[in-house]
Amino acid sequence: MKEEYFITGAGGFIGRHLVNRMLDDGDSVHILIRNSSRRTLPDRWQPQVYVHIWNETTEGLIGIMNQVQPSVVIHAASLFIAEHTSSQVDALIGSNVLFGTQLLEAMAVAGVKKLINFGTSWQHFRNEPYNPVCLYAATKQAFEDIVTFYVEARGLRVITLKLFDTYGPDDDRKKLFSTLMHLLRTGESLSLSPGEQIVDFVHVDDVVEATLVVRQRLFANSNSKECFAISSGEPLPLRDLVAMVGDAAGKPLNIVWGGRPYRAREVMEPWTAFSTLPGWSPRISLKEGIRRMVSSHV
Amino acid sequence: MKEEYFITGAGGFIGRHLVNRMLDDGDSVHILIRNSSRRTLPDRWQPQVYVHIWNETTEGLIGIMNQVQPSVVIHAASLFIAEHTSSQVDALIGSNVLFGTQLLEAMAVAGVKKLINFGTSWQHFRNEPYNPVCLYAATKQAFEDIVTFYVEARGLRVITLKLFDTYGPDDDRKKLFSTLMHLLRTGESLSLSPGEQIVDFVHVDDVVEATLVVRQRLFANSNSKECFAISSGEPLPLRDLVAMVGDAAGKPLNIVWGGRPYRAREVMEPWTAFSTLPGWSPRISLKEGIRRMVSSHV
Repeated sequence: MKEEYFITGAGGFIGRHLVNRMLDDGDSVHILIRNSSRRTLPDRWQPQVYVHIWNETTEGLIGIMNQVQPSVVIHAASLFIAEHTSSQVDALIGSNVLFGTQLLEAMAVAGVKKLINFGTSWQHFRNEPYNPVCLYAATKQAFEDIVTFYVEARGLRVITLKLFDTYGPDDDRKKLFSTLMHLLRTGESLSLSPGEQIVDFVHVDDVVEATLVVRQRLFANSNSKECFAISSGEPLPLRDLVAMVGDAAGKPLNIVWGGRPYRAREVMEPWTAFSTLPGWSPRISLKEGIRRMVSSHV
Repeated sequence: MKEEYFITGAGGFIGRHLVNRMLDDGDSVHILIRNSSRRTLPDRWQPQVYVHIWNETTEGLIGIMNQVQPSVVIHAASLFIAEHTSSQVDALIGSNVLFGTQLLEAMAVAGVKKLINFGTSWQHFRNEPYNPVCLYAATKQAFEDIVTFYVEARGLRVITLKLFDTYGPDDDRKKLFSTLMHLLRTGESLSLSPGEQIVDFVHVDDVVEATLVVRQRLFANSNSKECFAISSGEPLPLRDLVAMVGDAAGKPLNIVWGGRPYRAREVMEPWTAFSTLPGWSPRISLKEGIRRMVSSHV
């Protein structure tokens, strides 16, 4: 059966990969574009993706949701800021709490019941049930509390996937992998922390796969609120990850280890006390994922 | 030692009573007025209360907090909506999550460490650790998640007082007690639900007293995050409460019991699985509080 998807954050890294996969599968995809957005859509999306221009009001979103009546909503929109400044507080609450609440309200009013949401392993600093690494992680937790209202009082069914680090092709985020690819191309050097922190990188294709598994689960399973972690199963020190990239490229990267300090709340050991998603395991090993990244970028 | 208080929501029911008490105690009180506010201040506040006009930006609040350097911040601002409509979603997140986050950020930047926060027993529907009665209660829980970040990462010390129903003089909220006083004056009739729900009403003077106990606790105690309920210890069915009001007035109230249905998520049994605040118990019994209300209103 073909799905009618409604996706937020379709312009982002994970959102773009989700839309591509859904188009490959022949599903219908509805995306939201804010009036103020300046993103341009990929050419291959043009005839197949339904674009809804949104005026950023709850009423506007209700109108769109009523019209689309999607079978599943995927909330991939997220403002990620590892260490915020005071001027970013409004945007973090606006993107990660207010927008999501408007989405839930629109779903409830339009009778749309199934939501896939994304959280972060950073909600679990020091492996605690809740201890946010940063304000971004706190806004993700805050949004889950809002989700609980719509589950308990409005009958929504929501599964949250908590992500670790992600990587893959077509990544315009200024995060580790795109920086490493840049170093490989240019031979430039880069100062990093001492690099002993354990990292957990999952290929974006595996995140997309997990999302499709969750989509099935939302239809097959009657639990109203669940949460699963999407881990590579291959946590390793950052130093070792960088060495693997160097090995794949056939030349070491020019890293000044310890050239900058750890962050104030650096995650030295990632979250491990999580539930895994039944029916999903990563298909792309870190070695294979790195091979693909290096061969396409260098 | 005299305190330097900074209070949000000073124009609200609890905020006004807090400010009055602090002025009685000879403390300094700083309050925040939004550019857009249309409230007028009580005459007796005029020479003694420091009023800070706020432009609603985080930067503006940082400037004020840097200048005031209060010993304690009391966050009494709250937008209460028992059953929201879609058009109120923005205001609920704005008032109960965004504004509070701006306040925490300003405190962190200005090095102000002690906060008294207010939550609601409605975060605990069916006596659960977290199950919000309504979206308002969910925004209170969401804000507590943001608080956790500032406690863990910025060293703030926060005590949250979770309130049940409150009542007392000078109450301009359209809630039960002011409605009952109106009925006593006019003899009008009112349709209510069947009235079997258990309610827990605390006199505002006792809420103020609890706040002052918490203020002491923030200085004496090194715990970084605590939460206490402010309960009357006299929960009773709504019908019995209304009968007590009638008894105190010497005439029964004209209530059509069952004239309207219970709310969709009516709280039939209030939260009981709470921690009580050491060193505090209510001084004003329900009977005495009702006597005062009736004698001053009729």
